Amino acid sequence: MNYRAVETTGEYVARLETGADWRAEIESLAEEVDADAAWFSALGAVQDAECWFYDQEDCEYYPIEFDEPLEVASCVGNVALLDGDRFAHTHAVLSDADGNAVAGHLNAATVWAGEVHMRVFEESLEREYDETTELDLWL
Amino acid sequence: MNYRAVETTGEYVARLETGADWRAEIESLAEEVDADAAWFSALGAVQDAECWFYDQEDCEYYPIEFDEPLEVASCVGNVALLDGDRFAHTHAVLSDADGNAVAGHLNAATVWAGEVHMRVFEESLEREYDETTELDLWL
Amino acid sequence: MNYRAVETTGEYVARLETGADWRAEIESLAEEVDADAAWFSALGAVQDAECWFYDQEDCEYYPIEFDEPLEVASCVGNVALLDGDRFAHTHAVLSDADGNAVAGHLNAATVWAGEVHMRVFEESLEREYDETTELDLWL
Repeated sequence: MNYRAVETTGEYVARLETGADWRAEIESLAEEVDADAAWFSALGAVQDAECWFYDQEDCEYYPIEFDEPLEVASCVGNVALLDGDRFAHTHAVLSDADGNAVAGHLNAATVWAGEVHMRVFEESLEREYDETTELDLWL
Repeated sequence: MNYRAVETTGEYVARLETGADWRAEIESLAEEVDADAAWFSALGAVQDAECWFYDQEDCEYYPIEFDEPLEVASCVGNVALLDGDRFAHTHAVLSDADGNAVAGHLNAATVWAGEVHMRVFEESLEREYDETTELDLWL
Repeated sequence: MNYRAVETTGEYVARLETGADWRAEIESLAEEVDADAAWFSALGAVQDAECWFYDQEDCEYYPIEFDEPLEVASCVGNVALLDGDRFAHTHAVLSDADGNAVAGHLNAATVWAGEVHMRVFEESLEREYDETTELDLWL
């Protein structure tokens, strides 16, 4: 079991800017509060979204585009360093006007409204290439 | 970036009452622990549900009714003041007997069983009318 | 309202082992950090999954099997004692290559990659049989 005790040094709530990119906004928040490692959850709505699905055979991400307004029914993720930059690993569940849910690794989405809670850890997390999954993982 | 540092003054777990309303129960918890601002996550099951989808053109919420038992696969939200009352902004992902997921802004749902974790913040959050989205947003 | 104030005594991030069982990994983490009560959220991907749906008429869980790689778009749950053992009550939202979401009570799933945040509480939570729902509930 790869695990690490963490200490929370700061806790924040944020409102994402209408028209901005959902994930970039979360990374801006991490930047502003100087977070090299953090855990977050969020909710809201987006004007469109691009989710990624990881093909475990090809070891490649493939994009899935949604060009319509969607609720962000759930969003959970964490901030870690990837090649020296803050990266917000973001998964989300989105829903349309009929309530149908789509989901995945959220690469990009245009914010309609977004509310985030972020806990910043004292310890940093750093992503490194993992040979088994060909993903960049921390710990 | 609109954000605010918050301080957690209390942390609670709660079990929602079978037959009660899911969101009203969360608001009761906020009431009992005197929370003017809080963040929560939850899971469980409901006997029915009414989700809302926000139409970003009309700037109106439209209801979607689900008249069947559903798992609450994910529920995330926050408590803030809206016109002086505690309002639990609640998003949820629900699933049926085949595992199909529906989701949205959870207005109402009859609890079958519900488990909630709530963090109460020292600072209060107040929702105010936002001209761009015509939503009541905090910060 | 059944609720209890809790005190967090430790906070952890963990990476789940590729090929291991998702829920068993979370229970191992609870074991290693000596958690009799905890709250967690997680994200990642699995190679397959078995979700359970609780039939509120029969008061029985029925399994739904997914024999394909899926993203874990959301995962929320808690650790409590059930018949003296640590049990991780785990709900998850999973998504396929088209972004379609399925969800439910996650009984088992083979980890591809998993990232978990767990808060451990000082107080223990113990599940006991509830006559109304025929579920094992805490508080």
